[in-house]
Amino acid sequence: MALPVSPLAPNSYPDLPAIAGVRFATAEAGIKYKNRTDVLLCAFDEGTVVAGVLTRSKCSSAAVDWCRERLGAGKARGLLVNSGNANAFTGMKGRTSVAASAAYAADALGCPADEIFLASTGVIGEPLDPLKFARATKEMSARLASTPWMEPAKAIMTTDTFPKLATASVEFDGVPVSISGIAKGSGMIAPDMATMLSFIFTDAPIDAKVLQGLLQPQIDKSFNSITVDSDTSTSDTCLVFATGKAAIQPISSAADPRAAIFAEALGDVLHELAILTVRDGEGATKMVTVNVEGAESDRSAFRIAQAVANSPLVKTAIAGEDANWGRVVMAVGKAGEPADRDKLSIAFGDITVALNGERAAGYDEAAASAYMKNQELEIRVSLGIGVGAATVYTCDLTHGYISINGDYRS
Amino acid sequence: MALPVSPLAPNSYPDLPAIAGVRFATAEAGIKYKNRTDVLLCAFDEGTVVAGVLTRSKCSSAAVDWCRERLGAGKARGLLVNSGNANAFTGMKGRTSVAASAAYAADALGCPADEIFLASTGVIGEPLDPLKFARATKEMSARLASTPWMEPAKAIMTTDTFPKLATASVEFDGVPVSISGIAKGSGMIAPDMATMLSFIFTDAPIDAKVLQGLLQPQIDKSFNSITVDSDTSTSDTCLVFATGKAAIQPISSAADPRAAIFAEALGDVLHELAILTVRDGEGATKMVTVNVEGAESDRSAFRIAQAVANSPLVKTAIAGEDANWGRVVMAVGKAGEPADRDKLSIAFGDITVALNGERAAGYDEAAASAYMKNQELEIRVSLGIGVGAATVYTCDLTHGYISINGDYRS
Repeated sequence: MALPVSPLAPNSYPDLPAIAGVRFATAEAGIKYKNRTDVLLCAFDEGTVVAGVLTRSKCSSAAVDWCRERLGAGKARGLLVNSGNANAFTGMKGRTSVAASAAYAADALGCPADEIFLASTGVIGEPLDPLKFARATKEMSARLASTPWMEPAKAIMTTDTFPKLATASVEFDGVPVSISGIAKGSGMIAPDMATMLSFIFTDAPIDAKVLQGLLQPQIDKSFNSITVDSDTSTSDTCLVFATGKAAIQPISSAADPRAAIFAEALGDVLHELAILTVRDGEGATKMVTVNVEGAESDRSAFRIAQAVANSPLVKTAIAGEDANWGRVVMAVGKAGEPADRDKLSIAFGDITVALNGERAAGYDEAAASAYMKNQELEIRVSLGIGVGAATVYTCDLTHGYISINGDYRS
Repeated sequence: MALPVSPLAPNSYPDLPAIAGVRFATAEAGIKYKNRTDVLLCAFDEGTVVAGVLTRSKCSSAAVDWCRERLGAGKARGLLVNSGNANAFTGMKGRTSVAASAAYAADALGCPADEIFLASTGVIGEPLDPLKFARATKEMSARLASTPWMEPAKAIMTTDTFPKLATASVEFDGVPVSISGIAKGSGMIAPDMATMLSFIFTDAPIDAKVLQGLLQPQIDKSFNSITVDSDTSTSDTCLVFATGKAAIQPISSAADPRAAIFAEALGDVLHELAILTVRDGEGATKMVTVNVEGAESDRSAFRIAQAVANSPLVKTAIAGEDANWGRVVMAVGKAGEPADRDKLSIAFGDITVALNGERAAGYDEAAASAYMKNQELEIRVSLGIGVGAATVYTCDLTHGYISINGDYRS
């Protein structure tokens, strides 16, 4: 099924630089899709460390389980990703399948299977035949290259309508360190610990445990702060691979001042990929930023922002360009978090629509309606009871979402 | 806006008997709608007691607040309900408005304002002019009658496409006791303590506190077990009025064996009204029962059932008649409740689609797809880790829901 490209797609894609120590290839393994690539093999030079964040779903996929068991060791030589089949809820067959898949990749790359990381996305409940990877891994290993990054970004797509890439770089002592990442995701997006699939590559020399420690807070501000449809995937995976090839002193402690600088650049890449995922939300026509402030705590603000961002009634009002702020009141009210109705204020962009528990004096429906015609919208909720704040990014809920998910077995 | 009647509407409506001690009238007050009734006034004979359950929304409406303050006294002489304006998030204006509205109704019925109960449903955030009720209450009080119940059921509708009525009766010592109820609700339905609006009337002589005690467990099994769109209203209200006119010894203790019999009949009425509300879910084309069993506790089973019933991906799959049980796996996984993926089984009606963590042996996609064409569907989830069970009722998510809520300011 060819979906029309999201109206929120970026006009151009960044040109990601080669990351020393990372090579890759893609192939058509015929897992589900025809006439497109659906498998990605990455090879990492010896010494590459890995950190990652995985879904907290109780029904996590076999590939997620595989990664969870191997992240502790922090060493990676390869990554094998497929789209079209999630290998989730496939029981013993799933466990056998990931072990065999890792073995094929390890054989092709000449490394231990325990240093191969795996990710799968697509249909849930269908056994995934590892034989699909037997020849593909061997064939791909013969033509590994370090560019162009557009290829792996495309190979991991499912209902995505555009590839997602982001890059950043920092300089330490005059030496550039690069961070590049790709992601996929469009529906079943309410990441809990990570997104559908995202892979970040850097040449930074950094200790695996330090990298893991830097990653979680950045994930919370990026992938864990987006929602398309409140549905959390069985396969959410974000892995960061650091090859250590940049010629700087290794970052071996979180107290190293370079760690914070690196974390910020890493956060920029994750944030960009997360926003691109929302912009490719199934059926999306509007990009919405929900800012909540004045809550009892940041956690409370986050839950309220989620309640607004996940409300079908708020999201359909946005799709209809209706400045229906009463539905924002409803969503705040249902969140179950501390709130005082009579201190609650709401704004659409710079237009205050409700102030201290009632419609703002001089509220101009025409101005609010005009604002709603924008493609990028901001909903601001001020609770007035504390200093907790949070931001959640989402999209609208349209006929497109119903069409995509009422017809397509994703 | 005239919405097409839900395909899940009942073929006929029950003929509700008069309840001794209850009279009512409806009128066109022009609150928002044209050419239809939008206000209901009920008068109760002296001695009528009241119990009720109200929304837990932090942004509850002025009418909800009014009722909450007066339920403790347990005495009712009147009920004034309007559709078209929820009088929610209207600040001090809202508080003034409910006080004035109650005063008009009390004046018309010749009783204290504190014994008038109020409910409002419709737009959130618009001040409600109580003057709309000044003449209407007086005029209605001159033509109070005890039938037909279709009139009040219609006057309280908003996006409802059909009126909702239910009745039951029990006999104690050869004397019939009647329970009749009406409800409204179609969208913004994920009741928390009650539904949008439901009013139950009985001639049972029963103590107010006993009635209140009986009500909550029945609400939990009925209105609190349905969801249309996961959005909880600011106005959810269920009130039960008991006139005491039936010629039986009063039920003055929960230990009275007749209390349990009465509670069961009350539960039947509430259940029927709750199901009718789901059957009129905005855009609904399928009625879905989600049964969860084998969970760690009933509460845990309920949360898992809610996760399935609220999942946009499950609901759109049902709309598309797609036996996409992988999405049920996803929803169980995201619920955050205790679950063991490898003990999880799922059935659509009598068709087991997944058993012990993977696709059932001999799974017949054609049979499952054929089952999905039914108008009434059952999703059964067996967790296999305990004895907790729960049932949640919902409907599918269709283009109709998007159309209704993307265009209409409800």
